[in-house]
Amino acid sequence: MLKKVAILLACILSFSFASSDSNETSVKLNLVKNIKISHKMTEMSKKCVECHAEKTPGVVADWKQSRHSHAGVTCVDCHSVNADSPMASAKVHPKGSDNHISMLVSPKTCAKCHAEEVKQFEESGHARGAMQMYAKPGMVKLMYHYEGADHPDLKMSPDTTGCAMCHGSIIKLDANKKPTPETWPTYGIGTVYPDGGVGGCKSCHTMHKFSVAEARKPAACASCHLGPDHPDIEIFNNSKHGHIFNSEGHTWNYDSAPDTWEVPDFRAPTCSACHMSGVGETVTTHNISKRLKYNLWAPRSNLRTAGNDKAVEEFRKTGKLNIGTALAGHPEGPEAARAEMKLVCKSCHSTTSTDNFFTMADKHVELYNVYFDEAKKMLDDLKSKKLLLEDEWSDEFQEIYYHLWHHEGRRMRQGALMNGPDYAHWHGVFEVKNDIRKLRKIYKERIETGKIH
Amino acid sequence: MLKKVAILLACILSFSFASSDSNETSVKLNLVKNIKISHKMTEMSKKCVECHAEKTPGVVADWKQSRHSHAGVTCVDCHSVNADSPMASAKVHPKGSDNHISMLVSPKTCAKCHAEEVKQFEESGHARGAMQMYAKPGMVKLMYHYEGADHPDLKMSPDTTGCAMCHGSIIKLDANKKPTPETWPTYGIGTVYPDGGVGGCKSCHTMHKFSVAEARKPAACASCHLGPDHPDIEIFNNSKHGHIFNSEGHTWNYDSAPDTWEVPDFRAPTCSACHMSGVGETVTTHNISKRLKYNLWAPRSNLRTAGNDKAVEEFRKTGKLNIGTALAGHPEGPEAARAEMKLVCKSCHSTTSTDNFFTMADKHVELYNVYFDEAKKMLDDLKSKKLLLEDEWSDEFQEIYYHLWHHEGRRMRQGALMNGPDYAHWHGVFEVKNDIRKLRKIYKERIETGKIH
Amino acid sequence: MLKKVAILLACILSFSFASSDSNETSVKLNLVKNIKISHKMTEMSKKCVECHAEKTPGVVADWKQSRHSHAGVTCVDCHSVNADSPMASAKVHPKGSDNHISMLVSPKTCAKCHAEEVKQFEESGHARGAMQMYAKPGMVKLMYHYEGADHPDLKMSPDTTGCAMCHGSIIKLDANKKPTPETWPTYGIGTVYPDGGVGGCKSCHTMHKFSVAEARKPAACASCHLGPDHPDIEIFNNSKHGHIFNSEGHTWNYDSAPDTWEVPDFRAPTCSACHMSGVGETVTTHNISKRLKYNLWAPRSNLRTAGNDKAVEEFRKTGKLNIGTALAGHPEGPEAARAEMKLVCKSCHSTTSTDNFFTMADKHVELYNVYFDEAKKMLDDLKSKKLLLEDEWSDEFQEIYYHLWHHEGRRMRQGALMNGPDYAHWHGVFEVKNDIRKLRKIYKERIETGKIH
Repeated sequence: MLKKVAILLACILSFSFASSDSNETSVKLNLVKNIKISHKMTEMSKKCVECHAEKTPGVVADWKQSRHSHAGVTCVDCHSVNADSPMASAKVHPKGSDNHISMLVSPKTCAKCHAEEVKQFEESGHARGAMQMYAKPGMVKLMYHYEGADHPDLKMSPDTTGCAMCHGSIIKLDANKKPTPETWPTYGIGTVYPDGGVGGCKSCHTMHKFSVAEARKPAACASCHLGPDHPDIEIFNNSKHGHIFNSEGHTWNYDSAPDTWEVPDFRAPTCSACHMSGVGETVTTHNISKRLKYNLWAPRSNLRTAGNDKAVEEFRKTGKLNIGTALAGHPEGPEAARAEMKLVCKSCHSTTSTDNFFTMADKHVELYNVYFDEAKKMLDDLKSKKLLLEDEWSDEFQEIYYHLWHHEGRRMRQGALMNGPDYAHWHGVFEVKNDIRKLRKIYKERIETGKIH
Repeated sequence: MLKKVAILLACILSFSFASSDSNETSVKLNLVKNIKISHKMTEMSKKCVECHAEKTPGVVADWKQSRHSHAGVTCVDCHSVNADSPMASAKVHPKGSDNHISMLVSPKTCAKCHAEEVKQFEESGHARGAMQMYAKPGMVKLMYHYEGADHPDLKMSPDTTGCAMCHGSIIKLDANKKPTPETWPTYGIGTVYPDGGVGGCKSCHTMHKFSVAEARKPAACASCHLGPDHPDIEIFNNSKHGHIFNSEGHTWNYDSAPDTWEVPDFRAPTCSACHMSGVGETVTTHNISKRLKYNLWAPRSNLRTAGNDKAVEEFRKTGKLNIGTALAGHPEGPEAARAEMKLVCKSCHSTTSTDNFFTMADKHVELYNVYFDEAKKMLDDLKSKKLLLEDEWSDEFQEIYYHLWHHEGRRMRQGALMNGPDYAHWHGVFEVKNDIRKLRKIYKERIETGKIH
Repeated sequence: MLKKVAILLACILSFSFASSDSNETSVKLNLVKNIKISHKMTEMSKKCVECHAEKTPGVVADWKQSRHSHAGVTCVDCHSVNADSPMASAKVHPKGSDNHISMLVSPKTCAKCHAEEVKQFEESGHARGAMQMYAKPGMVKLMYHYEGADHPDLKMSPDTTGCAMCHGSIIKLDANKKPTPETWPTYGIGTVYPDGGVGGCKSCHTMHKFSVAEARKPAACASCHLGPDHPDIEIFNNSKHGHIFNSEGHTWNYDSAPDTWEVPDFRAPTCSACHMSGVGETVTTHNISKRLKYNLWAPRSNLRTAGNDKAVEEFRKTGKLNIGTALAGHPEGPEAARAEMKLVCKSCHSTTSTDNFFTMADKHVELYNVYFDEAKKMLDDLKSKKLLLEDEWSDEFQEIYYHLWHHEGRRMRQGALMNGPDYAHWHGVFEVKNDIRKLRKIYKERIETGKIH
């Protein structure tokens, strides 16, 4: 309730400020960001639209449906760059103009209007998507375990067609200032742009519509958050929340302003509602790590005690990602994170219900840690006794160990905390349990015989 | 046709009776159940709604959209209980009132208006969901094969976050009369309430909207009927029925009264249409076992010859579930069940088409039995020769045997009978075939050497 | 642009021709096919509709919503056949008439109005769906590796409930001229009818609505193109195209005339948009192989250099399918196929983006070939040294080899070319990599010891 009053006041105040120093056409955007953009299209923008309506009609059709077009944000506002920009096209475009364009649009450009969102994003785990793959020395070795390593011309294909498409890439430009096939196109969340911008705004708000409504639907997350190692959309579909969304979500209202998207706009939360939106007493954030108590992707689940993520900061200073902040989360720590998450639950659930739920889900995470610790102890012991093969993918123990934490172990933990029983159980603890028995058997054999079979 | 006339007559008759002994506001419900509920909200109910519109707005928003609210069924009708109810809150609520509430609402409460539905439900296999997990002595041992067994504080997490979330739990109350985290919240279909009510009405008709339309959509079943051991939603999506639903189901009419939901309200059946709804000459039932010829979940598929399920009856008498009625189905036997199912098919398919379809699907079930019988024979022989490990999950033979019937074997059978070819074949017989070869190999080795390798 | 003018001209011209030699009611269809069908229903058709509205109401309800009904195409136009038709019912129907009907409607009947579509279909890989299973001598042996082989009465069930439901069957009739349960019903794409018609028009345009809108949605393909061996719908859902479709596809316009279904009717392509529809400068085709550069389903991916598929032609001549045309694609070769596909991309993507994308996806296909070639070499070597078991499904090497190409290898390739990173990587190259290591280990053991373990 207090939140609602605060939002209303903020609107009125910013409207007043905006009105006092602006003409009519820039009122709307001023309300949000104090940036003046004229609604009158420039000659150049008209030219873009006319020509591209023929050449790439989908781009223009999308833009015409976007809020950008109505707010006077046109092609040149995002694609026109100074000649000395690292991403400026080698040739002017269109021919005969003095205009340099960039086919790449970096979050730095988005931040001209959406500064707060970009800042929050940079403090989140999402921001480290590409850097942890391509700027962390250890990772490279891991990745080139793939056979491609022996085929220089082909070895990047697993990255480009696979990992980078969700994680993002560190975009490289060729001699003609065009992005290389190895690094672009990507729709990855942590993409690093040649101008130092980090992030994949278009990963969730797809171009060229850039819709808030789209990002509030599970489909926006589902194209990356799926599969054996983080089946978040499958877990959502397995939950009562997903059940409700799947039966009637197509009739809901996804267009409310940030911080005002509330029940009864929707009847059950989507991914965004719990992790990002300003539901109930919470406020909207683009830091998806902020409401998380545990790290559920790491080999062992520990509490997120490290505050905001520092990856972007470190990378900008050093060009590398040497220190990890795997425990980044809420700046005030894991209990603050959990408390914020519970504010979302509160829209529909009693305190007893919510508390009971998290009590048992947390125990499932702890039970996972029990399994993991046993597996890790065996691994370390075998290592110290030189009973592991160097190529981990040829070593049955190491292969099972990897699947235990990276695949079924994540499913067990995420399934519990997002209420997907099939993932907590069948794809989770049931498989972890089988893994641990197999690891014990192999361990026993190796220790008893001193040999790798 | 005859059915339609009968429905019309019934409506007219009950309307006459109702009108003669009721005031205007109670007419509607009288039509259905001869129970008087006033449309005028009590002061208490108004208080509930006003306060909870602030505290749990989703609950109130749902209820406002429900038929309950329009029919004058308010918060107190379901949540207000006598002080001596086993589920009555320790304290009165709201403070200062003399009102005891229960956060739990049992099917016994639902039965006040929906008696026939609850009765049918209790006669179905759904009703045994929780009892077969928690009231059947043998099961406990099976479940605590999981590692959690050694960690008393954690050992319930696999159940609570996994099994019980679909199967249901037997709800226990703590000293403050609040449900324990180990047993609640659950959305499980067979939940047993402290007052002896059995069932998860809200599993399909989610709270607090309790919509018939929702329960008619596949999503209502999909949050439980999925995954490796009963991929019913995946099979549906793999079928032509699913294909049609997925392409246009969002435009269909799901609101027709029971027994009148018919083509062209929909163009292809959903789960509910085949298993529960009064389509064509069938009548609506909440006994989902009634139209089933075979038991497809048991290790071996036998005909459902045992009439209605007796689990609730037995549990109420003994507090245990010693005898199973795994073959419960149609009270008149398996052929009556099949005949009723075929009445649904008849809306769109010729007799030749339907008969041919079931002929081959039944053969696929029989072919599964051939495989299963061979596997069981080997298992029994190894057991008698003491060639099985005590811990079945460490024993390769027993692990494969389990998967053969519980995972791929179910997929093979359900895939055939629900027309999901990928499940009949790739996830079904193709894997069963590989299993059986592995079992033969292990069996042969153990028999020949007299040892477990 | 040129295409649009051409389409408009074609419409005007055919309208003129049509008008000059037809009465009012047949104008519409004349526009398309120069076939006269009266809009006035015959007495016989009225009789069909009246009776079947009672007996199979779904069939009539569908037809009433179809374009067929509005264009005057009625029951008898498709189901009424000459008494000497191979599919004519043994008895007249309805009783007392002189009408023979066929419950089967072959593509030959569809071709009376849709000749071009049927011709294109016959030139596609889709057309060989059933023939390659049931008319190719080698396949039969492969299929009866299944246990069913020892149970003559049951052995067809894996085919009928599984393979044939997507691939189609070669329909056989019993003594009463009714299709046998082993071969019908099937919704398979390559079904061969007793009159020699080949194809499953209703696989995508389900009966009795036969809607173009339906076939343009991913659900139309998804009921077959799913699962471990060709997870096309899963890959689509994993792609940004799927992300966009899943978030807003239910609001798009699917009803535009062929060759005019364009952005902004949709905002992202569906299966049909890329593979069949006349998007941008392309023209509509029912030859789904035509825009494909590579064969991605075969053990090794080679360029599609064989022009149109010849399976139907060969089968009609010989009744067998001895020669394969696995490399059928675009009549002008693989580069023409790719160029046509890129015309679709062009609606929304820059040339750099499209070219970069395909460069890396093609490399992923080539990388797969590197793996496959190594696996094949080991297989051939083991074979020549008699180090393979005769029953391939009992032989670990052969089982892994099969999965390498048929399951994970297809996922790796299709994932890359349809932009589904989880399939290119986790379900693809990640598993292929593990397979190849296992194959090497087994190979080494067999070669070193001269024995099969």
